[in-house]
Amino acid sequence: MDFAISEKMETILGMIREFVDKELIPMEPEFLTNEFRDMEPELEKKRDMVKKMELWAPNHPKEYGGMGLNLMDHALVSEALGRTPIGHYVFGCQAPDAGNIEILNLHGTPEQKDKYLQPLVEGKIRSCFSMTEVEQPGSNPVIMDTTAVKDGDDYIINGHKWYSSSADGAEFAIVMAVTNPDNAKYMQASMIIVPSDTPGFNLVRNIPVMGHAGSGWSSHGEILYQNCRVPQSNLLGPEGGGFVIAQERLGPGRIHHCMRWIGICTRAFDLMVHRANTRMMAPGQPLGSKQIIQAFISESAAEIQAARLMVLQAAWAMETKGHKEARKEVSLIKFYVAGVMQKVIDRALQVHGGLGMTDDTIIAFLFRHERAARIYDGADEVHKASIARRILKEYEGKNIR
Amino acid sequence: MDFAISEKMETILGMIREFVDKELIPMEPEFLTNEFRDMEPELEKKRDMVKKMELWAPNHPKEYGGMGLNLMDHALVSEALGRTPIGHYVFGCQAPDAGNIEILNLHGTPEQKDKYLQPLVEGKIRSCFSMTEVEQPGSNPVIMDTTAVKDGDDYIINGHKWYSSSADGAEFAIVMAVTNPDNAKYMQASMIIVPSDTPGFNLVRNIPVMGHAGSGWSSHGEILYQNCRVPQSNLLGPEGGGFVIAQERLGPGRIHHCMRWIGICTRAFDLMVHRANTRMMAPGQPLGSKQIIQAFISESAAEIQAARLMVLQAAWAMETKGHKEARKEVSLIKFYVAGVMQKVIDRALQVHGGLGMTDDTIIAFLFRHERAARIYDGADEVHKASIARRILKEYEGKNIR
Amino acid sequence: MDFAISEKMETILGMIREFVDKELIPMEPEFLTNEFRDMEPELEKKRDMVKKMELWAPNHPKEYGGMGLNLMDHALVSEALGRTPIGHYVFGCQAPDAGNIEILNLHGTPEQKDKYLQPLVEGKIRSCFSMTEVEQPGSNPVIMDTTAVKDGDDYIINGHKWYSSSADGAEFAIVMAVTNPDNAKYMQASMIIVPSDTPGFNLVRNIPVMGHAGSGWSSHGEILYQNCRVPQSNLLGPEGGGFVIAQERLGPGRIHHCMRWIGICTRAFDLMVHRANTRMMAPGQPLGSKQIIQAFISESAAEIQAARLMVLQAAWAMETKGHKEARKEVSLIKFYVAGVMQKVIDRALQVHGGLGMTDDTIIAFLFRHERAARIYDGADEVHKASIARRILKEYEGKNIR
Amino acid sequence: MDFAISEKMETILGMIREFVDKELIPMEPEFLTNEFRDMEPELEKKRDMVKKMELWAPNHPKEYGGMGLNLMDHALVSEALGRTPIGHYVFGCQAPDAGNIEILNLHGTPEQKDKYLQPLVEGKIRSCFSMTEVEQPGSNPVIMDTTAVKDGDDYIINGHKWYSSSADGAEFAIVMAVTNPDNAKYMQASMIIVPSDTPGFNLVRNIPVMGHAGSGWSSHGEILYQNCRVPQSNLLGPEGGGFVIAQERLGPGRIHHCMRWIGICTRAFDLMVHRANTRMMAPGQPLGSKQIIQAFISESAAEIQAARLMVLQAAWAMETKGHKEARKEVSLIKFYVAGVMQKVIDRALQVHGGLGMTDDTIIAFLFRHERAARIYDGADEVHKASIARRILKEYEGKNIR
Repeated sequence: MDFAISEKMETILGMIREFVDKELIPMEPEFLTNEFRDMEPELEKKRDMVKKMELWAPNHPKEYGGMGLNLMDHALVSEALGRTPIGHYVFGCQAPDAGNIEILNLHGTPEQKDKYLQPLVEGKIRSCFSMTEVEQPGSNPVIMDTTAVKDGDDYIINGHKWYSSSADGAEFAIVMAVTNPDNAKYMQASMIIVPSDTPGFNLVRNIPVMGHAGSGWSSHGEILYQNCRVPQSNLLGPEGGGFVIAQERLGPGRIHHCMRWIGICTRAFDLMVHRANTRMMAPGQPLGSKQIIQAFISESAAEIQAARLMVLQAAWAMETKGHKEARKEVSLIKFYVAGVMQKVIDRALQVHGGLGMTDDTIIAFLFRHERAARIYDGADEVHKASIARRILKEYEGKNIR
Repeated sequence: MDFAISEKMETILGMIREFVDKELIPMEPEFLTNEFRDMEPELEKKRDMVKKMELWAPNHPKEYGGMGLNLMDHALVSEALGRTPIGHYVFGCQAPDAGNIEILNLHGTPEQKDKYLQPLVEGKIRSCFSMTEVEQPGSNPVIMDTTAVKDGDDYIINGHKWYSSSADGAEFAIVMAVTNPDNAKYMQASMIIVPSDTPGFNLVRNIPVMGHAGSGWSSHGEILYQNCRVPQSNLLGPEGGGFVIAQERLGPGRIHHCMRWIGICTRAFDLMVHRANTRMMAPGQPLGSKQIIQAFISESAAEIQAARLMVLQAAWAMETKGHKEARKEVSLIKFYVAGVMQKVIDRALQVHGGLGMTDDTIIAFLFRHERAARIYDGADEVHKASIARRILKEYEGKNIR
Repeated sequence: MDFAISEKMETILGMIREFVDKELIPMEPEFLTNEFRDMEPELEKKRDMVKKMELWAPNHPKEYGGMGLNLMDHALVSEALGRTPIGHYVFGCQAPDAGNIEILNLHGTPEQKDKYLQPLVEGKIRSCFSMTEVEQPGSNPVIMDTTAVKDGDDYIINGHKWYSSSADGAEFAIVMAVTNPDNAKYMQASMIIVPSDTPGFNLVRNIPVMGHAGSGWSSHGEILYQNCRVPQSNLLGPEGGGFVIAQERLGPGRIHHCMRWIGICTRAFDLMVHRANTRMMAPGQPLGSKQIIQAFISESAAEIQAARLMVLQAAWAMETKGHKEARKEVSLIKFYVAGVMQKVIDRALQVHGGLGMTDDTIIAFLFRHERAARIYDGADEVHKASIARRILKEYEGKNIR
Repeated sequence: MDFAISEKMETILGMIREFVDKELIPMEPEFLTNEFRDMEPELEKKRDMVKKMELWAPNHPKEYGGMGLNLMDHALVSEALGRTPIGHYVFGCQAPDAGNIEILNLHGTPEQKDKYLQPLVEGKIRSCFSMTEVEQPGSNPVIMDTTAVKDGDDYIINGHKWYSSSADGAEFAIVMAVTNPDNAKYMQASMIIVPSDTPGFNLVRNIPVMGHAGSGWSSHGEILYQNCRVPQSNLLGPEGGGFVIAQERLGPGRIHHCMRWIGICTRAFDLMVHRANTRMMAPGQPLGSKQIIQAFISESAAEIQAARLMVLQAAWAMETKGHKEARKEVSLIKFYVAGVMQKVIDRALQVHGGLGMTDDTIIAFLFRHERAARIYDGADEVHKASIARRILKEYEGKNIR
């Protein structure tokens, strides 16, 4: 075993960390109080700087203009960018575009790649992923009401989706819809590209989440597809293959998310320790001299370290053993890291006292928005049950004493 | 021991519960998306209904127009009203006015009562309480930078306060300021009434808290007192007696807060159980059929029951043994109930999945704003340390085996 | 509501506490290192003292020589006795005899009362309750392998039981066996009195529990019933009524257990605080000056207070509303109090450091043996699921917002 | 980063695992019910088998007959052996001898090595480490009452130690005693070899721990040193260097302990999953079909994985960066892994129900004895405070936003 990071990556990470500290974190007060839409011109400038530094799209294929980092290396990048909510966006590796890029790269036709993949990697357009439905449990993707029915050379799509993140301003959506209702249950749905200017593509609203509807990339769309007609050539991958592709997409996506969360943890941790050092309870008595605060710090340090190593090990397993073999590891980190993040943010907020509740630091934003981590991409409970069933099966018939 | 509630109170509580359900909860969507300021006319109508039902100002003295309920009975009222964030406001028993009314009633001069107490109880004006300072730990009130210096018949006040809740639109503030710097440390500060139109009373901003600065009653003010001059007749209670009065005020205030939190718990609990019953994971398989969700429900039920009984016992102790004797009980409930509330809200959010993150239910609001409960009126850590020191002292010299 | 304890009870409790401190706790070192069997003569003397003080059998009927305390009052007694593992035994209200006495009192024939109830209350004989089976889940009493088949005027009993606590030296067992396999599932088993000298009553072993098989009252028997023949007049209560009676018995039994656990909590708490006061980390720096230890103390104080009030409220509910109505409360306290106890004992052990692992204090005994509380009389998980199902049902069809 | 284990180590680990399963686990029932002393002849045979397999003393120097594995590789061995309480003993790498061997190897004179190190590595004699004192906090080694005063060519030792593990039957103790009371506080004590047959070496008792005093290697001695005279040539390392050496010894020792705990975790986990698969709640409904049990399994899997990676990373850090640099990592794992172990064992016990309380499985033994892990080698609280102080210092003066 070897826990060392390559020199090349250390260099890249050093550049990223410095950029985050100097260029992005100072933008946070604006991010916290203004509309994302209004920040876009300023963010565009930062993106240009990143491109000039040749750090753009670190995880995306070189042929389309990315850096082509492997899973493990991008995991480290994702950690560094996760320290600020605008990190991934400015470096061109933000969700949901990152996942869509992966799908288009693996399954897109040459035409689809030209039209959608290339400008997406370049950051010229944005996209969204439209799977979750209002009335159906995200945890059970077999139950899906949205349909795509063939009509001539087209599909006609009807359905009600939400949490189509970043739909506001997206050029297109990748929509999951039932195309083959008579297939075996995991083979009924397909992915279809739907340009957002298609008639019948109705962005009902940006869902108000934790007090804000947001805008642009920083929003979660509710979309009503009403007789939305697209050519069958917009089918992405094989018909009925939607779930299989989605599953594929989730693996690396979870690694990226989890490392982003680790980045958030380290940010919250730094703020917590700094506050403990500088907030005086009485002259000469910083908050950090109190043992309960010390316990917060040490427990957070241990949990972050534990969580971080688990994610890196899962990335390694996925690269060396493949998606299927690493499925358990990936499920484990999904709920474990989300849980650690919530605890660390909560402690950081507590250590900041009244200040922690305000938008004068990033912590209150993290507290309320990152709560979603225990829900999206499979709620804690779903992962726990699914991992356990897998483990129970592995042990069946074994003679254990 | 007898855990029964009197018939009279059962009747009152029944009326309140019905009013909350029919008149107030339907206003929540507006509360969640609009400015409080804009809701005021509508809320005024509800207040009139409450007055007609003779349920106005349940905890305030009869002679000023309240119901004069004792601490235990108002605790039960506070629970019922706590189910919605606008409950206490509509019934005329909202913080910080409730506490200010108590202080004015106990310590106000006849002139102060005429001018401030009477219209406050009637709900004609609002007030704020200006104690917490930006640069000093709220947990150590001995360290206070704000000063009130005598000049002729006046005080000249200088200082920087924040978390002066509801300052926006308040008629006056009760300001805590050091008047007697040479006194023993707990006898240095005094309470002084400062009308908000006094020159030098500068409301810098409504602090943005969890993404919103709020307005009117639903806001937290940052106030800069700059050579703010008020007559010495505005002194409230004895000079140097500020901390003693504040301490007195906190006891019953904590009971009210804690029972409001219990109300919040029961609301979140109801929503959680309802969701568990109605959200289908698969046909015929409600979320509530899952054992992890069942554990959420039972653990919440136990913790709410435990917390509720503790608060009622503390109210009883305060009434029968007095403030001083009940100090430990009151500190215990402060941190314990706040902790239970956070857990229950968190579980309710989790059970709602993606919906729980939205403002389509009240839960996301509770999740982010009630987080403050573990901080204001003494952070968890402060209470834990202070209770323990008291207990350790009680055991000193005892022969324990 | 009124949380006061009657003067009469305060007097009784004062006497008991003093007796426990002076007469019983000093016997613990012997209890921890010797066989229970060898302590019996000494314990008999203490029982005589208790009888002389007229505190014998506090919960048992006056007509048989007990004090006839009601549920709430005995709950307080049980708390006071719970401070030491030999408390209930010395006062004649120990499990499993206490439960058997209740059953015999409610369902015994005059002959059964003469023969078994009277000497049991007097402490002249002991008994055991033989329900749990090795191969079947205690949580699902419908699945039971032990049978009692009629043969002439007798029952012939066959089955394999364990956790028949105190079987070693018991005069008789109350055995649960299937008598009516064709009945509805909750009406198949009956309770039958089986004297321990009946041929076919085979005490296989005292089960080694946490390193000790124990002896006498302080043991848990594994019993093999092999063609064990008893007259049908030994049937206790109606045929097929075994589960219903067992259910009845469990309600008050859980109250007693829970209050015993509260007693254990207060004992562990006292030892913890005392240790924190007296163990010096450095000159003038007691362990209790450390904030993490202070947090242990305050959290324990809160949880014990919470748990205690819940049990008393459940006792009150059972007395005023009846067993059925109080079922939820009783299930709640079962798992909640057991959980609190484990946490408190664990903290007390931790505060004692290496000493806490030794048998030089009672804590290590409590740590290992009271772990069973989360298992017997229904494991945590069983109670949580069952309470939740009950609550979910209550909410069905309700319109909740 | 690379998480792969070398082929050589995989082979070794495979042999060890098989040996543990086939030869050692079957001896556990005897271990649980008999005296260790009586098992020694049988264990000696197993040791011979290990020696023949050339797996003896895996962590000890080749020149003395060990395998000379490095820290990381022995960590993996320690995990495999940790699955059974007798694993390390049978493979000749048990505490406290392992630590003493390290000290003797690094600091012993040629004579000391001949006389003590050689037979110790060979398993011909045993030893103990005599540092912890009854009256002084182990967490503050500066406060030590035991003294070694020079008299002629000898030291005369006086003091009261306990938790001198395995003193019963040890050939010698390494005793920590104050030799230089006027030195700076961390330079006052020295390590001195004291043969157990020295007059004045009084083994007062094997301390009864969790109900058992134990015997032989499996015991914890209380030793009174009364004018115990040994030649000054028995000084181990430099005079006054005792703490420094002890500190050195603790680093690798904690790695070994932590990996042993991971082994315990995996054992408890296996038993838990197996039980969940095989215990039927109703026909066709294994315990493992319940979601709460599934949560136990998944949470345990995540925590064990997290803990395991942390220990391996700490081992790597210690090897690549040195003891000092890895101090934080080692402190983190000490409390984190101990905590995970307690949780995993507790869940395993709970899943076993009544069986879990008995000595019919290894779980109850692990539950009660491994509780000590959160205490010895620095209590949780001590590590948490010390890590936090280190972190706080690292952040001092940093500009964090």
